Order: sequence, then C-alpha cells, then structure tokens
Amino acid sequence: MPTALYLDDLAVGRKFATGSVTLTLEGCKAFAAEFDPQPFHLDEAAARDSFFGRIAASGWYTAAVSMRLLVEGELTIAGGLIGLGGQTTWPRPTYPGDTLRVETEILAVRTSESKPDRGIVTARNQTFNQHGEAVQIAVVKMLVPRRPPS
Amino acid sequence: MPTALYLDDLAVGRKFATGSVTLTLEGCKAFAAEFDPQPFHLDEAAARDSFFGRIAASGWYTAAVSMRLLVEGELTIAGGLIGLGGQTTWPRPTYPGDTLRVETEILAVRTSESKPDRGIVTARNQTFNQHGEAVQIAVVKMLVPRRPPS
Repeated sequence: MPTALYLDDLAVGRKFATGSVTLTLEGCKAFAAEFDPQPFHLDEAAARDSFFGRIAASGWYTAAVSMRLLVEGELTIAGGLIGLGGQTTWPRPTYPGDTLRVETEILAVRTSESKPDRGIVTARNQTFNQHGEAVQIAVVKMLVPRRPPS
Repeated sequence: MPTALYLDDLAVGRKFATGSVTLTLEGCKAFAAEFDPQPFHLDEAAARDSFFGRIAASGWYTAAVSMRLLVEGELTIAGGLIGLGGQTTWPRPTYPGDTLRVETEILAVRTSESKPDRGIVTARNQTFNQHGEAVQIAVVKMLVPRRPPS
C-alpha cells in the first residue's frame, strides 16, 4: 500500500511524478468514437485537411489518460483524488504514438474554515509528451482530508 | 447536414442546446475502470464510506459525455469543435441514473489579429442534471474559422 497523503503532508512546492503511457491509434479512435466523434479524431483523410494535419487525440482523451496516470502515480491522497474543478489548457495536440506522463506541483494549501477536518489543495498537473513538451496544463483544486488525530 | 456556423454567426449571448443522455451504472464503471479507477467510482461499499455516499461518475466522464452531447448538439461550428482549454468546475457530483444535457452561451468573440481567417470564441457550457442542477460549468475557448469570402 502506498503512503496515504493528508493535507498536512502537501507543502507548497512539493512535486509528484507518474509513470508513462503511449497512446495507440486504436485507443484514440475508440475514445473519440464514444465521446468526441469528430472526423479529425477518427478519419485520416479528414484529419489531413483539418487544423491538426493528422489524426489527433481528443483533448478529453488526453485529460482522461492524465487522470489514469495520476491515480496510479505518487500523489496518493488519503481518500482519493477528488477534484472540484480547474483551469485546463491544451497548448498543443496529442497524437497516437505520443508517450505521456504527468508532473504535479503543489501551488497552495488551505484548511477549510467551516470543516476543519479537510482543506483545498491547488496543484498544477502538467502532462508532457516524449519531447518534453506540455500537451496539457491543468491547475486544479482538490478536496484533501487533514490527518486524523492519532 | 446541419448549418456550418462561422465566427461571424456567433454573436455574444447566442445560446445553443443539446439532446440529453442518461448515465448508466455500467457506463460510469467502464469509464472509471479505464481512466479513473478509484473505489468510489467502482465499488458500492467503498463509495458509501466516501465523500460521495454512493457510486459517483468520474468528473472526467461527465466531461466526456458533455463533449458527446455538444458534438451532436446545435453548436455546429464549421471545421468542428476545437477547444484550446477552459475553466471547468463540478459544483456537484453526477450519479448513475442522472440525465444530462448541455446549454451553451456565447460569452465573447474575437478575431485573430495574426490570422484573420479565424478567431477565438469564449463560451459557457453548462451541464445540467434532471433536477436542473448544474453538474459541470465549463468556460472554454474555441478556435472558430471566419466565413470564407464567397
């Protein structure tokens, strides 16, 4: 079992890594067929004539894959990763064959005034491709419990 | 074929609707198993003891389902829905059995200075459940082409 991290453990500036995963054409197309059925995510000829130039992954696939990496990564928050929302940008597209990993940095930690057993942590989750280019930058707020009295 | 909408068509304040979809337990769990394998998305007993109280959908599933609704909805932008990023919040969880729909309102329209054949549209996509409660509020920036000279 990984160590359960509480609000008390998450100092500003602390960083967490994840493993990596390589996107397949099949995975990109299966996600797009279910959730984002636009030609530039599904059809090579249509993608060539689009903004992307070739089949690109849905940004929501990049987001979903990043979540999977986070769940299995070093940021093992007690009670799980519960996001309240955040600011996400996709500075460049993600393509089949890209190998993605996520780096997290803690930006802010605040204990709840009304519920002192928990708090809100702001973190920056950056998803990088194999060239070290950021393909997703997500600044998110997460609900994190405080360490219970022992 | 639906009408292709260009930047020139998207006045501030204009609204667009989507159809609706009802989330199934199987759909919620299948998505979570692949992208967000946390106990409160997969296991009824674990969910009961969690923040959610019962199995909740991953926020990323809410986002992905909302994208599907948008792709099939009234906002039929020429060249497709290409998001550059945005601010997403999940004011309340989404649960299996919830029926979701999305309402879009155009908030800002700006022609690119460097590339006058396109622009950036800011829109608010609100996902509502069957009680009319917002379960996701996404303020997004999209790349939208200008109408070509005829």
